[in-house]
Amino acid sequence: MILKNYKAVFLEHLAKKIKVKEPASLYEPIVYILNLEGKRIRPVLALMSCEIFGGKVNDALDAALAIEMFHNFSLIHDDIMDAAPLRRGKVTVHEKWSLNTGILSGDALLVWAKQLLESYDGDKYKRLNTLFTKTALEVCEGQQYDFDFETTFDVDVSNYIKMITQKTAVLLAASLKFGAIIAGANQEDSDNIYQYGLNLGIAFQLQDDYLDIYGKEDFGKQRAGDIIENKKTFLVLKSFELMNDQDREELIKLYGVKGGSDKKIENVITLFNKYKVSELIQLEIKKYTSQAIQNIENLSISAQKKESLVIFAEQLMERKI
Amino acid sequence: MILKNYKAVFLEHLAKKIKVKEPASLYEPIVYILNLEGKRIRPVLALMSCEIFGGKVNDALDAALAIEMFHNFSLIHDDIMDAAPLRRGKVTVHEKWSLNTGILSGDALLVWAKQLLESYDGDKYKRLNTLFTKTALEVCEGQQYDFDFETTFDVDVSNYIKMITQKTAVLLAASLKFGAIIAGANQEDSDNIYQYGLNLGIAFQLQDDYLDIYGKEDFGKQRAGDIIENKKTFLVLKSFELMNDQDREELIKLYGVKGGSDKKIENVITLFNKYKVSELIQLEIKKYTSQAIQNIENLSISAQKKESLVIFAEQLMERKI
Repeated sequence: MILKNYKAVFLEHLAKKIKVKEPASLYEPIVYILNLEGKRIRPVLALMSCEIFGGKVNDALDAALAIEMFHNFSLIHDDIMDAAPLRRGKVTVHEKWSLNTGILSGDALLVWAKQLLESYDGDKYKRLNTLFTKTALEVCEGQQYDFDFETTFDVDVSNYIKMITQKTAVLLAASLKFGAIIAGANQEDSDNIYQYGLNLGIAFQLQDDYLDIYGKEDFGKQRAGDIIENKKTFLVLKSFELMNDQDREELIKLYGVKGGSDKKIENVITLFNKYKVSELIQLEIKKYTSQAIQNIENLSISAQKKESLVIFAEQLMERKI
Repeated sequence: MILKNYKAVFLEHLAKKIKVKEPASLYEPIVYILNLEGKRIRPVLALMSCEIFGGKVNDALDAALAIEMFHNFSLIHDDIMDAAPLRRGKVTVHEKWSLNTGILSGDALLVWAKQLLESYDGDKYKRLNTLFTKTALEVCEGQQYDFDFETTFDVDVSNYIKMITQKTAVLLAASLKFGAIIAGANQEDSDNIYQYGLNLGIAFQLQDDYLDIYGKEDFGKQRAGDIIENKKTFLVLKSFELMNDQDREELIKLYGVKGGSDKKIENVITLFNKYKVSELIQLEIKKYTSQAIQNIENLSISAQKKESLVIFAEQLMERKI
């Protein structure tokens, strides 16, 4: 099945399973966010992985939905915490309804996500649940590190990689492993596809950092949002590491104020450019992408299936927004 | 084992299992709220129920902890939503740290709670998880109804009973059923102990409503907090039902303003007294308590154990704060 079809099959399943129930004030925001346009990368990974390991795509639909629901729960709460007005070009849940609705609908969505896993039984049920919970906790921890980093420069690139691994990569990795578990793949294959997802996820997040500054205009996102929010991305930390003392002082000063005047954004980007960190981040993205591709080698699947995983990785890194 | 001992055994387990991990900024608030003084009714119910059905108390400790953690997750988020400054006489998490910490630590606590259930296996694991998830979703729905009711008088006592069933009673009922499942009780006993918990939980919440207005001074709680927050408790809805048009208009007016001046509180209580709803609520509490006691009758346990459940119900209803 080609990627586009995974997405279509998934969206059909989503529409069938996710409907407004009573109390509507709790479930309307859930249906709203789950129906915003999106790439649906996580469920696509789960479905693709299940098929690659010889399982039926249909068997992975509930798990794929659980992951997408978890992801959207984290978006609702993250948007509150970041005071973000927009998500995928649309008003965020807490802006459209209220803070309280954002908190409570998010909570319900997290719980509902787990309920979807009840379609599975026995050992698979426990393995999926255990992985889900471990991943969810890592995502919370990653989010916390992200906050902690906002108010300090006592962070290096390796701390940053650990943070994005938890905040972003583990969920992509878990999506792939979900598919493997459902297909009944052996432990080694499950672990390797997880590693593939982990490396791909790190590359994916680095790409996000890059595109936030150097990407094409995207109406769904605030440009340079990371600078506005004082996020210590790879670009910031790498340039900080390379800087002379004077530039370092300036960067600390610029990041001492929350918010994003045009001047702040411009000055920070000037510093990025001076230390050529846009080139360094692209090298880093390539490094993690090729590590992901290496993880494919050991899988006990056909060469053709391996090739499709390589293509997927490359396509993911070619996005412009 | 007597109730005091269940609590002591539980607190020992809590201290052993719940420690601050990294990132400390995420886990400190969790350890803080879990260590606030409290009655620990839910874990005590789980341990007691397990022992009553012939299981080992130790086997139920992780499930009891999971329930207490879930309960505390809901307290953290509820306190944000109610803008509450105090919880059990201490500063609430979002006040002591921040809104973002309250949201994220709450999320992590919810996820961590579920992780505790991984000590169980096979069918028990799935039954515990399924009940946990169903209950958690009901609690979210109950909380939402509670909010929805704040801004309308289009609510009757039966809507209210449904709301408190979801918001409060199902968790007490699930605590008891957790113990039954772990002990390997049969389906009928598990269902009956659940019903006992449900009726007890409704009586418990009605008692809370009563004590909020007519209870002894409690330093951990704001007096008449329900009136301040415009909560449509049994007292409000029952008096509203019995009122003449003039009093009804006055109550609507008093509840049209959020917050709690002394005059508002005094006027509302005068209306409660005029329609003698404090007596009516006590009758209602007795009704649900005796229904709970009836649910005990059909259990396949010794007369002595039945008696201990009766005593527990009666003691719970004798509290003064």
